[in-house]
Amino acid sequence: MDEPATGTGRGRASGDATAGDATAGGGPVLRVALLGCGVVGSEVARQLQEQQDELAARVGARLELVGIAVRRPGRTRAAGVDPSLLTTDADELVTRADLVVEVIGGIEPARGLVLRAMEHGASVVTANKALLAEDGPRLYAAADAAGVDLYFEAAVAGAIPIVRPLRDSLVGDRVERVLGVVNGTTNFVLDQMDTTGADLGDAVQEAQSLGYAEADPTADVEGFDAAAKAAIIASLAFHTRVRAADVHREGITAVTAADVAAAREAGAVLKLLAICERTGGGDGPDGAPEGVSVRVHPAMVPREHPLAGVRGAYNAVFVEARGAGSLMFYGQGAGGAPTASAVLGDVVAVARHRVGGGRGSSESAYADLPVRPMGEAVTRYHVRLEVHDRPGVLAQVAQVFADHGASVETVRQTPLGGDAQGAAALVVATHEAPDAALAATVEALAASSAVLGVTSVLRVEGV
Amino acid sequence: MDEPATGTGRGRASGDATAGDATAGGGPVLRVALLGCGVVGSEVARQLQEQQDELAARVGARLELVGIAVRRPGRTRAAGVDPSLLTTDADELVTRADLVVEVIGGIEPARGLVLRAMEHGASVVTANKALLAEDGPRLYAAADAAGVDLYFEAAVAGAIPIVRPLRDSLVGDRVERVLGVVNGTTNFVLDQMDTTGADLGDAVQEAQSLGYAEADPTADVEGFDAAAKAAIIASLAFHTRVRAADVHREGITAVTAADVAAAREAGAVLKLLAICERTGGGDGPDGAPEGVSVRVHPAMVPREHPLAGVRGAYNAVFVEARGAGSLMFYGQGAGGAPTASAVLGDVVAVARHRVGGGRGSSESAYADLPVRPMGEAVTRYHVRLEVHDRPGVLAQVAQVFADHGASVETVRQTPLGGDAQGAAALVVATHEAPDAALAATVEALAASSAVLGVTSVLRVEGV
Repeated sequence: MDEPATGTGRGRASGDATAGDATAGGGPVLRVALLGCGVVGSEVARQLQEQQDELAARVGARLELVGIAVRRPGRTRAAGVDPSLLTTDADELVTRADLVVEVIGGIEPARGLVLRAMEHGASVVTANKALLAEDGPRLYAAADAAGVDLYFEAAVAGAIPIVRPLRDSLVGDRVERVLGVVNGTTNFVLDQMDTTGADLGDAVQEAQSLGYAEADPTADVEGFDAAAKAAIIASLAFHTRVRAADVHREGITAVTAADVAAAREAGAVLKLLAICERTGGGDGPDGAPEGVSVRVHPAMVPREHPLAGVRGAYNAVFVEARGAGSLMFYGQGAGGAPTASAVLGDVVAVARHRVGGGRGSSESAYADLPVRPMGEAVTRYHVRLEVHDRPGVLAQVAQVFADHGASVETVRQTPLGGDAQGAAALVVATHEAPDAALAATVEALAASSAVLGVTSVLRVEGV
Repeated sequence: MDEPATGTGRGRASGDATAGDATAGGGPVLRVALLGCGVVGSEVARQLQEQQDELAARVGARLELVGIAVRRPGRTRAAGVDPSLLTTDADELVTRADLVVEVIGGIEPARGLVLRAMEHGASVVTANKALLAEDGPRLYAAADAAGVDLYFEAAVAGAIPIVRPLRDSLVGDRVERVLGVVNGTTNFVLDQMDTTGADLGDAVQEAQSLGYAEADPTADVEGFDAAAKAAIIASLAFHTRVRAADVHREGITAVTAADVAAAREAGAVLKLLAICERTGGGDGPDGAPEGVSVRVHPAMVPREHPLAGVRGAYNAVFVEARGAGSLMFYGQGAGGAPTASAVLGDVVAVARHRVGGGRGSSESAYADLPVRPMGEAVTRYHVRLEVHDRPGVLAQVAQVFADHGASVETVRQTPLGGDAQGAAALVVATHEAPDAALAATVEALAASSAVLGVTSVLRVEGV
């Protein structure tokens, strides 16, 4: 047995006579209820069955799947799902489990069921990023009140352990910044655009045909999925409550082939990043107010940066901590098996607590830092303009940057041939500045008489 | 407070009157004893001081450093180390702590002190890879007997969370294979050789002048350090006891500039890998007996593989699991601050258990798989030969491979000019085969009348 049964966590396996009687071989048993039986749910059910002995050896108690709540029990299920376990009465099911696995997704009925499960003393493992990012504090409070575990490794970046490293491994350190490629669909799309030169529409279609994107890709391409994950990551990294609604969100729908080309020209690659960083408090640039900046937007990442090598539908989370330095966690961010792996890891961890007593980490929000508005976020811009090819234009453009307190790091001017006779392209990279100043600069540039058009505006991260 | 004090773990902070009295502000206190005050130890001491309030908020109890055991108290210490805490009586110190941090390293006196600490009911956090790889099971047993935690994230790959992911995150999955770049010194040396064409001696000197290598680099370049880490990783990944002595070990001392060049020619890079894999049981090639293969040796890794991008003194651990698929953990594998970060993460985790009751994961060795000899390890060879440039030589060489059951995947022949008139270079890449067969093939090749010399023999991984 992995754990000596010395603890007194409520609902301990060995104290669970009812379930104990249910075993053939006797020995402690933990009753597991599964809510939802889609791609992830059916994989979890299958693994609980197939790996039963190994999991029992690792937990120190047998995990008995006592029911699977579904909406349509008649529907045909994946192999390995015992039809006799299916029920439509989720409310009843959660009251007879030591451990509830929620993979329904969405806010309701998931929230009600998770709260009800904890009220009845069950520990909960969920993959529900939307629910955690929407109403996390309420769930944490319910877990504390009930003295049970609430685990959710699968909610962020699928099988990649990122919740546990942030919650536990780095808990003795000070996380300064997290840059995440946390949405596989958009990473696949941007990677396609980068490698094949395809435009957004074609790349999205390709992703759909390969099953990397939903028929309605809104949640991914508009950055909602990444924003929910950013909120969860920021909450864990900064011991501060951050909700999805607090996250500045820009998807990839405005990204053009020209943007991707501009990034390539600059020796960079375009990624949709979830960015969580501390501001002020001596860590940010002087004068920045203390708080956290949490945002999701496309950004240019230098090809040398470890995140630039994250291809296809893979995910990676890059962490900068004061002591640990730079860390990166890389792997498959979605899919039935990877997500089920993360769920089962939490199931075993939570089950071990039931057997051995005690609980894992619960919410830590003591720092309570304010979430700063996007305008205050310190970033760099990479702007491509088309201007009149005549003397004085560069000075005129440079003045616009100066007027808005944005300082230019490099500028490259190239005459445009063909139909664009008399025009030139200007590619300007700025130094760090507040986003508001840079945005205002771009606005002024667009209005400047020297400028024919602003063809690409990209933020730069990871330099 | 992060954890409600509902547990009954022995030596609970709130039950610790003595230490309780010691606080100014009152509230629960955990007494921390530090063994060793070198680069890591002094950093841990400094952080415990500097981050006192943050750590208290995360733990739910104040961490009070009650003593630092050193051999020479007179020696000048890093800033932030309170001289009044120094003591030479480590045996006494460990008896008055709730939590002992061991960063002395080596087998004795570390082992005796850790065992004594646990007998007295203290939880232990150690960075001592040598001790764990030498005598882990005895330490785990002592921790179980005492009902305390034994944590050691810092023992493998410094600040990179790898112990926790293997122990907890992937505990619901089946790990098939781990490839690790776990020694920063040798990775720096091989990276130098690859990028500058330097030979081994110069690269090692460079590493020494930059502080990446010890004056006596034996432990690193001969692979002892990596072997100890491989033993720990394999034990965690396969729920099986593996000792450093069980690990097949080849360092980088035999690596030549020619090997590095051969790798580059083949579109690969040379890395010293810690390789832990399941064999047989349906997972390995047919007929392979069930068990684990644990080895450390230089290997060619294709440039496209995520591990190939691990530059300089960085570390990375690449994990292949049945459900999770491919994962990689990347970061700084050594250094005072990164290692201290891992130690402090464990300190907080262990301290939370003292406050909240219960324990973390303990040893899981139920699988008890046999460690297979190197000869059975299934690998691929990349061999460079110089042969007589005459008809029939290729057939003769191919026959040698066939005779030993090693099948050739590709062969490239190029005439050698200059002094080597009448000679040609043959570069042969094999398919997978047991290491013994490939080694015997190379021996036979060296003895073959067709072969002038075997100039490079490299194993290939990650293809």
